[in-house]
Amino acid sequence: MAKISHVSPLAPARFPDLPVIDGVTFASTAAGVRYQGRTDLMLALLTPGTVIAGTFTKSATRSAPVLDCQAKLGSDPQTGAAILVNSGNSNAFTGQRGVESVQAITLATATACGVPQARVFTASTGVIGEPLPHQRIIDKLDELAKAQTPDTIQAAARAIMTTDTFPKGATAKIKINGKTVKIAGIAKGSGMIAPDMATMLVYVFTDARVDQAVLQDHISAQTDRTFNCITVDSDTSTSDSLIVAATGASGVDVTHHPAYWSALEDVMRELAQQVVRDGEGASKFVQITVSGAASAQDAKTHAMAIANSPLVKTAIAGEDPNWGRVVMAVGKSGAAADRDRLAIWFGDILVAENGWVSPQYDEAQAAAYMKNAELSLRVDLGLGAFGSTVWTCDLTHGYIDINADYRS
Amino acid sequence: MAKISHVSPLAPARFPDLPVIDGVTFASTAAGVRYQGRTDLMLALLTPGTVIAGTFTKSATRSAPVLDCQAKLGSDPQTGAAILVNSGNSNAFTGQRGVESVQAITLATATACGVPQARVFTASTGVIGEPLPHQRIIDKLDELAKAQTPDTIQAAARAIMTTDTFPKGATAKIKINGKTVKIAGIAKGSGMIAPDMATMLVYVFTDARVDQAVLQDHISAQTDRTFNCITVDSDTSTSDSLIVAATGASGVDVTHHPAYWSALEDVMRELAQQVVRDGEGASKFVQITVSGAASAQDAKTHAMAIANSPLVKTAIAGEDPNWGRVVMAVGKSGAAADRDRLAIWFGDILVAENGWVSPQYDEAQAAAYMKNAELSLRVDLGLGAFGSTVWTCDLTHGYIDINADYRS
Repeated sequence: MAKISHVSPLAPARFPDLPVIDGVTFASTAAGVRYQGRTDLMLALLTPGTVIAGTFTKSATRSAPVLDCQAKLGSDPQTGAAILVNSGNSNAFTGQRGVESVQAITLATATACGVPQARVFTASTGVIGEPLPHQRIIDKLDELAKAQTPDTIQAAARAIMTTDTFPKGATAKIKINGKTVKIAGIAKGSGMIAPDMATMLVYVFTDARVDQAVLQDHISAQTDRTFNCITVDSDTSTSDSLIVAATGASGVDVTHHPAYWSALEDVMRELAQQVVRDGEGASKFVQITVSGAASAQDAKTHAMAIANSPLVKTAIAGEDPNWGRVVMAVGKSGAAADRDRLAIWFGDILVAENGWVSPQYDEAQAAAYMKNAELSLRVDLGLGAFGSTVWTCDLTHGYIDINADYRS
Repeated sequence: MAKISHVSPLAPARFPDLPVIDGVTFASTAAGVRYQGRTDLMLALLTPGTVIAGTFTKSATRSAPVLDCQAKLGSDPQTGAAILVNSGNSNAFTGQRGVESVQAITLATATACGVPQARVFTASTGVIGEPLPHQRIIDKLDELAKAQTPDTIQAAARAIMTTDTFPKGATAKIKINGKTVKIAGIAKGSGMIAPDMATMLVYVFTDARVDQAVLQDHISAQTDRTFNCITVDSDTSTSDSLIVAATGASGVDVTHHPAYWSALEDVMRELAQQVVRDGEGASKFVQITVSGAASAQDAKTHAMAIANSPLVKTAIAGEDPNWGRVVMAVGKSGAAADRDRLAIWFGDILVAENGWVSPQYDEAQAAAYMKNAELSLRVDLGLGAFGSTVWTCDLTHGYIDINADYRS
């Protein structure tokens, strides 16, 4: 186990007040899967009619719970549903035993909660390659089913943490035709992979009414613009899972209300950014914007090349406005670029233009800017009309400390 | 300037004895381009008839000297030629002024050495974005032209260093039809990008006789199997250049002698591995072999995903046989993999097979293996007949120290 040290310096001041979402209840407990002295298991129950959509890691080595969830997304929403998440063990790369654990857990949850097994969605996060002691989880299911309350989402956010230094939550309320629709989301993640292949998990609850296919289309696109726009270390988990559950309890059909989808995307973006803010060893939160690209894909490729470059990330850690490394990252990305059309800004400071340092560039001013904990870095390629914005953190000694630690 | 500390713990015991290559002479001097108290400029002169081939960075932001060299590769080999390299300033991202510097330097070199300007190949390595003070270089050309000697290649290897902790050299001799053909190469590089976008530079000299097109075909393929199989930090220089100069002085046409090409590739591989051994902050040299891939491209993609993963590299630094991170890297690479067919070895130790930890795996044995400075990591995908081998180093606090340092 890596050290769970003090709270990230980039953490929000406090956990937000998340509203109760009609049709959703929670309970958490300490099942002792791996951690001692803390909660590590949460169960959310969803009212009959709840529509569930999800996005998952594209890893070719994804875990048994991920494969199980993906197969269940289209299940009939007329019944209730359950979301069960444990921390401490990811049940990843556990072969046939991992599949058997998911079978056993989802069957027991179905029985304890009175929902079909096809409507039980599980996730596991923590150490990999060790068999999941699933009986410890099953033994707690009756207790969790009985203890359900609508206002304990913050405790749920804590139970799914691994090396996170703070629980992550975000919320929105939207008025539609005089009625209020609510969204409340929680997430865990600290590095694409926390030390032992722990993962990013995201659960968003809403009382909106919407068809599954519509919800799935929206969150797939939104994931591309939010969770797929963050990177801590370029590594990709075997277990990343995002699930959005829409209970319909507000009675408001949101299908044709762009304001709702915009609010949902705001919640997703806020949770994604909180994951970066808890990036392993992070001391700076960095927004990287690329504009003027020849295509949307080129813009994203350049932005992620900058965000993932160890040399850019260490320069940021050193508070060095090293724009040369940004040029290097753009050059290596493989997407279209013209060295002599590049312009680069650190914050509002124009650093480079027309293939060279800007005549008005003042290194002392840029160095002062780099001392901020929240940084914005912009590159204009001068080639086209496409752009992309991604978020990352710096690469520090803290990252090495956490990840070069021996597991046991 | 980052600190040039003690010699890398992975350095060879000594610089090899490089033979004189008939038709090649060298001289080095201190031009004060940026560094003080050391040599920073080397000139190699090549006899008329010398054939020159090269491979260069694919970066979209490559430097003016790289673009100039690429344009000159096909120049008429009947005349003599010159290779001029400075360290301290890379003349990269210097706009039109950079082009003018290359013009001025190559013209002055042609005049001083009595060779056509189209046969002057230059490279610059060091800080980027600052105008190259090219008059300091030009002022030394007469001295360098007069001081040429055939046995000073080691001094040349030192003059092109930036943050390298040791000069890099390799050699081979091959008997063909009773005659000896010789190869001597030097390189610089320490991180794909040393702290200020310094770069990897490689110069190989041989007295073989060969057509330019044949030489170019061979070294292009060999670069893919050697220098394109190393990674320190996944970052790609704007200035990487490799030049092979064949003087023909041995009188031996090597075109149809596979033993020669094999020896040349050995020299290239040895130089490539020395660059990794001087990787910034490196404490472990790691060979990564992927076998059983569905295609050659898949094998390379998986091997480089493992070699570039910050989580794999920090685990190696921590001497942790964390095979879960290897599974993660294979999963994220995007190339074909089947979780349940993966097998993983650390050295000769079978760690995982059939999608899970191997029954005979002994963690204490694997942990003991990880204490070696030279490690071998092998993954079999169980899908096909293709393989790839790449070389990398670990990711340590030393890398952060070097790269989070403010430039000035």
